[in-house]
Amino acid sequence: MINVPRGTQDLLPGETEKWQYVEEKFKALCHTYNYHEIRTPIFEHTELFQRGVGDTTDIVQKEMYTFTDRGERSLTLRPEGTASVVRSFVQHKLFGHPTQPTKLFYIGPMFRYERPQQGRMRQFVQFGVEALGSADPAIDAEVIGLAMNLYRSLGLKSLKLVINSLGDVESRNNHRHALVEHFKPHIHEFCSDCQIRLEKNPLRILDCKKDKDHPAMQTAPSILDYLNDESQAYFAQVKSYLDHMGIDYVVDKNLVRGLDYYNHTAFEIMSDADGFGAITTLSGGGRYNGLVEDLGGPETPGIGFALSVERLLMALDAEKIDLPIDQALDGYVVAMGDNAVKKAVEIVYNLRQAGIQVDKDYQGKKFKAQFKAADRLKAKFVIVLGEDELAKQVVSVKDMTTGDQQEIPIASIATEMKQLIQGGKA
Amino acid sequence: MINVPRGTQDLLPGETEKWQYVEEKFKALCHTYNYHEIRTPIFEHTELFQRGVGDTTDIVQKEMYTFTDRGERSLTLRPEGTASVVRSFVQHKLFGHPTQPTKLFYIGPMFRYERPQQGRMRQFVQFGVEALGSADPAIDAEVIGLAMNLYRSLGLKSLKLVINSLGDVESRNNHRHALVEHFKPHIHEFCSDCQIRLEKNPLRILDCKKDKDHPAMQTAPSILDYLNDESQAYFAQVKSYLDHMGIDYVVDKNLVRGLDYYNHTAFEIMSDADGFGAITTLSGGGRYNGLVEDLGGPETPGIGFALSVERLLMALDAEKIDLPIDQALDGYVVAMGDNAVKKAVEIVYNLRQAGIQVDKDYQGKKFKAQFKAADRLKAKFVIVLGEDELAKQVVSVKDMTTGDQQEIPIASIATEMKQLIQGGKA
Repeated sequence: MINVPRGTQDLLPGETEKWQYVEEKFKALCHTYNYHEIRTPIFEHTELFQRGVGDTTDIVQKEMYTFTDRGERSLTLRPEGTASVVRSFVQHKLFGHPTQPTKLFYIGPMFRYERPQQGRMRQFVQFGVEALGSADPAIDAEVIGLAMNLYRSLGLKSLKLVINSLGDVESRNNHRHALVEHFKPHIHEFCSDCQIRLEKNPLRILDCKKDKDHPAMQTAPSILDYLNDESQAYFAQVKSYLDHMGIDYVVDKNLVRGLDYYNHTAFEIMSDADGFGAITTLSGGGRYNGLVEDLGGPETPGIGFALSVERLLMALDAEKIDLPIDQALDGYVVAMGDNAVKKAVEIVYNLRQAGIQVDKDYQGKKFKAQFKAADRLKAKFVIVLGEDELAKQVVSVKDMTTGDQQEIPIASIATEMKQLIQGGKA
Repeated sequence: MINVPRGTQDLLPGETEKWQYVEEKFKALCHTYNYHEIRTPIFEHTELFQRGVGDTTDIVQKEMYTFTDRGERSLTLRPEGTASVVRSFVQHKLFGHPTQPTKLFYIGPMFRYERPQQGRMRQFVQFGVEALGSADPAIDAEVIGLAMNLYRSLGLKSLKLVINSLGDVESRNNHRHALVEHFKPHIHEFCSDCQIRLEKNPLRILDCKKDKDHPAMQTAPSILDYLNDESQAYFAQVKSYLDHMGIDYVVDKNLVRGLDYYNHTAFEIMSDADGFGAITTLSGGGRYNGLVEDLGGPETPGIGFALSVERLLMALDAEKIDLPIDQALDGYVVAMGDNAVKKAVEIVYNLRQAGIQVDKDYQGKKFKAQFKAADRLKAKFVIVLGEDELAKQVVSVKDMTTGDQQEIPIASIATEMKQLIQGGKA
C-alpha cells in the first residue's frame, strides 16, 4: 500500500466542507474590501525565493523543495506567497494599471520541508492579501482589519493582535548597528546560525529558537528606540487608525517576523484559546517597501499578510465553533422493479438538471436497504417509484421531517420538488 | 527580472473571476449529484503513478516532474488526479464506509512536462470526479451526464460526446492478442516507442501520434469485435441510459484513452466550435475496475472523468460566451480634508463589516482624481465626505446610474447603504 507523503495530508469529505466554507468567507471578505484574486504557479525559479524571501532566512536555507526539471532549470515549490505575487506584479507591469494600489488576494498550497507537527505540515494552505502601490498608513490598517474581520466573522473570540514597527531603512540601519554592538561580546555563546546572522542579518538573532533564553536577548536594543521621526509618525498613524476602527492590539517590540523583507508595520494574530496548542500564531504580515525594486520593478510600497488555513481550523476547534454546514441531502429516489429502477436514473438526471440535489442506489440494493441509505444520507425527501407508481406515471414523495406523503406526477416532478424543498427551507 | 517558469502562467484579476465562476458551477453541480470534495497533496510518492497511471504511458515515461526530497524520498508532482484519489480511498479505507459508492470530486493543478502550446500547459487545472464501488452502468451514465451538464450549463453548444467500450479483462486479452498479430508484420515500419508498445501494451499503438497515418492503423482490429457477451451487455446498457437521458453520443471504436487502467466505458467530450484550435478534447474519462486492487485495496469497481479548465475556458471563448461576472464596485468613498480623509477610513471599515463592498483612495489623490478612480472601478454609488458633511455628521451619496443624490447620517450609513444597493439590484 502506498501512503500520502510524510508531512502532507488528504482532506476527505466531512473535512473539505469546512475548507470550502472558510474559503468562501475569505473570498467574500476580499470582495467587500475590493481585493481581487491572483493565481501564480505552484513552482517558481529558485532564484525568486533566494532574492524575494531572503538568503539568510530558515525558509531559503533549510526548508525549500528545490529540484531540477527536464530542461535543467532550478525550480522550487513556493514556500510562501508574497514573492510570487510581487514577481507577477513586476512581470505583468501591474504598476502601470491606472487603478492603484493593486489589491490582490490568493489562496493556495505552500511547501516547506520542516519537522511535521500539529499545525505545521510540509504542504499547508495559506490565504493571503497584498496591497501594492500605497504608502498610506490607512492601508496597513485595512490589511490588518481584513485579517481580524475574517477571524471574527467566523466566530473566533480569543484573538490577540500584536504589532510592531521595524522602521524605514535609516531606522533599521541604526538599529542593526546597535544590535551588532550588543551581541558581539556574547556571540561565542550563541549557536552557529546566530554567529552567521550577526554579520548578515543581526535582526534574525531575535527570532532564534535555540538561543531564545540567553540573557542578552532580553536586553537587546529595541527597534522602537531607533525609529526616526518619520517612522515614528507612520507607526503612530497606523495605531491611530486601528484605535478608530475599534481593533485592539498590543505593541511587542520583539516582533520581527521570519522574512527578510519587512519594514515599518509588522503584525501577528495569535489565538489565546485554551487548548490551542504550542503554536499560537494564526497569521502574520507586514510592510515590504523595497521588495518590488529588489525583484526588478519600479519603487513601489507594499503590505500584506498570510494566514494558515490549518491553524484557522484548529482555532475554531479550540473555541468549539461548529461551522454552519448543511450535511443533508435534498432527495433520494427509492425504486423497485427493473423498469422503475431504469426510470429512476432518468428522473434523477432530470431533477439534477433542474438544480435539485438528489441521489439513488447504484448497487442493486433491495427496497429496505435503499430506505436505509436515504436515512444515512439524511435525505429530506424520499421519492418512491415502484411498478404501481410507474404505471400511474407518478412518484410518491415522503417528507422525512414531517412524515407527510403525497403523489406527484413524473411530468412535473422538478417543479413540484423545488417547491417542496424551498417550502421546507423557508 | 524573473519570469514565470516556462509552461506555467499567472492568472490575474479579470481572468481569475472566470475561473472562480466555473469552479462554483462545478462545485454546485457536484453538490446536486451528491459528489463530495477530496483534496490530495500536490506531490505523491513516485511509485504511485508508476503503478497507478502505468509504466508504459507517455505520462510516466516522459512527462513527470520527479524529484528527491531532503529525506531521499522520490516524489512526483501529480500528473493527473485518479491515482491520488484511489490511493486516498485505499489508505483511509473509504471502502468500509456504509454509504457506497464513494462519490468524490476534485479541483486542482496537475503537472506534465510537455512542449507548451495553446491549451497545453505544464501546470494545468483539472476538475474531476470519481465514483468508487459501483459496477452499475447507470453510474457510468451519471458521470458522463455530470460532465455534459457542466458544459451545457455554461452555455456551450458545439459539443461532441464520443464513447467506446474497452471491454472486461477477457475481452481486452482477446483484443490484445489480435492487435499483436495485426501489427507484428508491420512493426519495423513503426516508431521505436510502438515497437516497445507491441510487447508491453499494444493498445497504446492506436494512440501513437507519430504513426497515426500508417495504413495498418486503419485496418487494426476493433475492440468492439472482441467484446464478450457481458461486456456487450454492459455497453448496451450505458448507451440505453444515455438515450433515455437525452444525451447524444457517437461510438468511436478507436477511442482508447491515454492511460493504462481503463476498461469497459471510455469517453471523451470534444468541442467542434469554429476556431477552437488543434486540440479539441475538453475532457475524458472511463471505467477503471481493477485499479483499487492494483493500489492495494479490495476489489472495487470505479469510474471517473477529468476535464481541463484551460480548455473549458477556451471553448467558451470559441463560442463567444461571456460569463455573467459583475465587475462593478458597490461604493467608493471620496473624502476631502485631513479630518474627513481619516474619518473615511473608519466609515469604509464599518461598511465592509456590514458586508458592503466599498473602497477609497490610498494615494493622497485630490477630489477630482478620487472621482475618476470611482468611475474606473465602476462604482455604483459614490459616497462624498467633505468638511461640511463631517460637521453635519452626514455623507452625500450619489447614485451613479440615476444621478440621484441624497444625504445620509454617518450613524446609520451601513443600514441605508444596504437598502440603496439592494434597491439598485432589484
